Amino acid sequence: MSYQTLEVKFNHSSYPIYVGEDIFAQEKLLAQHVLGHQVLIVSQENVADHYLSPLKQALHQFQCNEFFLPNGDSAKNLNEWQRILETLLHLGYERSCTLIALGGGVVGDITGFAAACYQRGVSYIQIPTTLMAQVDSSIGGKTAVNHPHGKNMIGVFHQPKCVIADVKLLETLPQEELISGLAEVIKYGLIADANFFAWLEENSSFMLKKNTAALLHAVSCSAAIKAEIVSMDEREHGIRALLNFGHTFGHALETACAYQGIRHGEAVALGMMIAAELSFLLRKMTAEDLIRIKQILGANHLLSVSQAFPSALEIIQLMKRDKKVQESKINLILLNGIGKAEKMAVVDEKLIGSAIGKVLEQ
Amino acid sequence: MSYQTLEVKFNHSSYPIYVGEDIFAQEKLLAQHVLGHQVLIVSQENVADHYLSPLKQALHQFQCNEFFLPNGDSAKNLNEWQRILETLLHLGYERSCTLIALGGGVVGDITGFAAACYQRGVSYIQIPTTLMAQVDSSIGGKTAVNHPHGKNMIGVFHQPKCVIADVKLLETLPQEELISGLAEVIKYGLIADANFFAWLEENSSFMLKKNTAALLHAVSCSAAIKAEIVSMDEREHGIRALLNFGHTFGHALETACAYQGIRHGEAVALGMMIAAELSFLLRKMTAEDLIRIKQILGANHLLSVSQAFPSALEIIQLMKRDKKVQESKINLILLNGIGKAEKMAVVDEKLIGSAIGKVLEQ
Repeated sequence: MSYQTLEVKFNHSSYPIYVGEDIFAQEKLLAQHVLGHQVLIVSQENVADHYLSPLKQALHQFQCNEFFLPNGDSAKNLNEWQRILETLLHLGYERSCTLIALGGGVVGDITGFAAACYQRGVSYIQIPTTLMAQVDSSIGGKTAVNHPHGKNMIGVFHQPKCVIADVKLLETLPQEELISGLAEVIKYGLIADANFFAWLEENSSFMLKKNTAALLHAVSCSAAIKAEIVSMDEREHGIRALLNFGHTFGHALETACAYQGIRHGEAVALGMMIAAELSFLLRKMTAEDLIRIKQILGANHLLSVSQAFPSALEIIQLMKRDKKVQESKINLILLNGIGKAEKMAVVDEKLIGSAIGKVLEQ
Repeated sequence: MSYQTLEVKFNHSSYPIYVGEDIFAQEKLLAQHVLGHQVLIVSQENVADHYLSPLKQALHQFQCNEFFLPNGDSAKNLNEWQRILETLLHLGYERSCTLIALGGGVVGDITGFAAACYQRGVSYIQIPTTLMAQVDSSIGGKTAVNHPHGKNMIGVFHQPKCVIADVKLLETLPQEELISGLAEVIKYGLIADANFFAWLEENSSFMLKKNTAALLHAVSCSAAIKAEIVSMDEREHGIRALLNFGHTFGHALETACAYQGIRHGEAVALGMMIAAELSFLLRKMTAEDLIRIKQILGANHLLSVSQAFPSALEIIQLMKRDKKVQESKINLILLNGIGKAEKMAVVDEKLIGSAIGKVLEQ
């Protein structure tokens, strides 16, 4: 068993992200992060079918129960969150118990939120099973459930005890989920690392073929960038906002579709393309960079959503309901070229509308 | 307007507790702690009838809405919490909004929990209107709702921006609520300040007559002790446990009665008396101190609950379900004499049973 250890470091605490292959069910690695003697594994059946049994084996020294969310994204709601809490109450789990999220972002976000609220906070461990979750949602302690009025509107910050990012778990991941996660990977290159972006231009096709070395490199680089940014800004008061590149547009698109027929990564990719167009229109970025972005997203099937979207005006209205809106100004993350992101309050809604139109109406 | 300012101080943040008379609706004092331009006042009608109108007047420069919980303790549940969140969503409140809890512990706890979870955390202000809330629940950031399986089982730590403890608000407080709050006031003397306890022996009768000077002194001393302990231990990993003196027993009694027919303060008073008896049985405290404790609680009508309780054995079983139980040992706060508290794991359940019997069966 070999793995790399990255660190999320705050003033008052820190935790490791382990990146490796075939490490998620290693007894030693796990046990050092389990507080108390009671464990609840939260998962979804499509994932649990493959990985629950070896994980339970590795936890044989603990009292271990499992909880299944329904498959699919719609499981990330208040009712399921309450069901997890009531399971903990029924089982008599103590304040020293540990929850383990075995699954994608849906499982990680709702498990973290339940761990945060059970008895005012218990431990949890993230074992992300999608590329998206490994590079993004499992790191940084953002927990939440969705509400019909908006995504992630109800939740808290609650950091996990550790994240185990095992690329072996991606073996069973459907191709379209891999592609969706790739959007977030490309995001890291765009906002923070031009070299990594260049590497992706050469190697993203190997990732989609599930080449282990390519996946390990991409997960490791992405997680390192996320860990560094989150370490500087736990509660999203400043630099952490850069991680929202493409997301304000993306969330509006998802809301417009009521989260149907569009994956998170696809929405983010379209959102990044819109933000890139806007950066170009604002003369912050060259046409050459814009073309490179369009090429990598296109080559990885991230710009071919066949969804019908509402008008640019309606999308702008939806964006104004986003958490990232302050005092009714639309704050966006834009690019000063590949690898350099910046937060800006954009007032010219016509220009925003043009950028949306250029991406969605072609 | 004159008031005293106490401070809750953590490494990364701090906030003031204002103690005074007729200060809750002072525009200047309030406005400096309101972030953003949107305010939601959460209250209950019995309190709002008296105080909502001057408070809204003081907030005239903000967009201000109100939310009413049903009267009574049973309002502190997940359904009402969800109703608050949905009100914020419907009103389109932004991440920069501020919630104000105008009420007793029920209002403060559920408002704090809603503020903690809306968009991963918004600001809130505590304006406690009961003695209990002024000296205890409004300070320290413990937020929660109850569940049929136990009190405060679902919640998080989320610190308010400030606490405004205005003894003027106690004018309309029913006598039995004042008595209930007095139990917590006496607790502070018992665990941390023998001089304050001696002052209470002389002056608690004036508090029950709502003498302003006596109330100001008692609230100020109590809030100062709570602020100091909380400042040392925000998340209850250590010394903060001392504040639970009488509470492990008290919660078990409340659960046994399904929160009916017994006030929190009465349960805590009985719990403190049980803990005192146990301290005496364990030879940690003199008979003289035990008698003083019994006298002050008795003189303030805190030991005369006419409720029928289950057996000592059943109460011990309920205690084992409490949050404060770790690895199935019963951790209790006991006294080394008046003014000196200590945390101990008690294994001898027979002795615990004797102490319960001595208090409840007389």
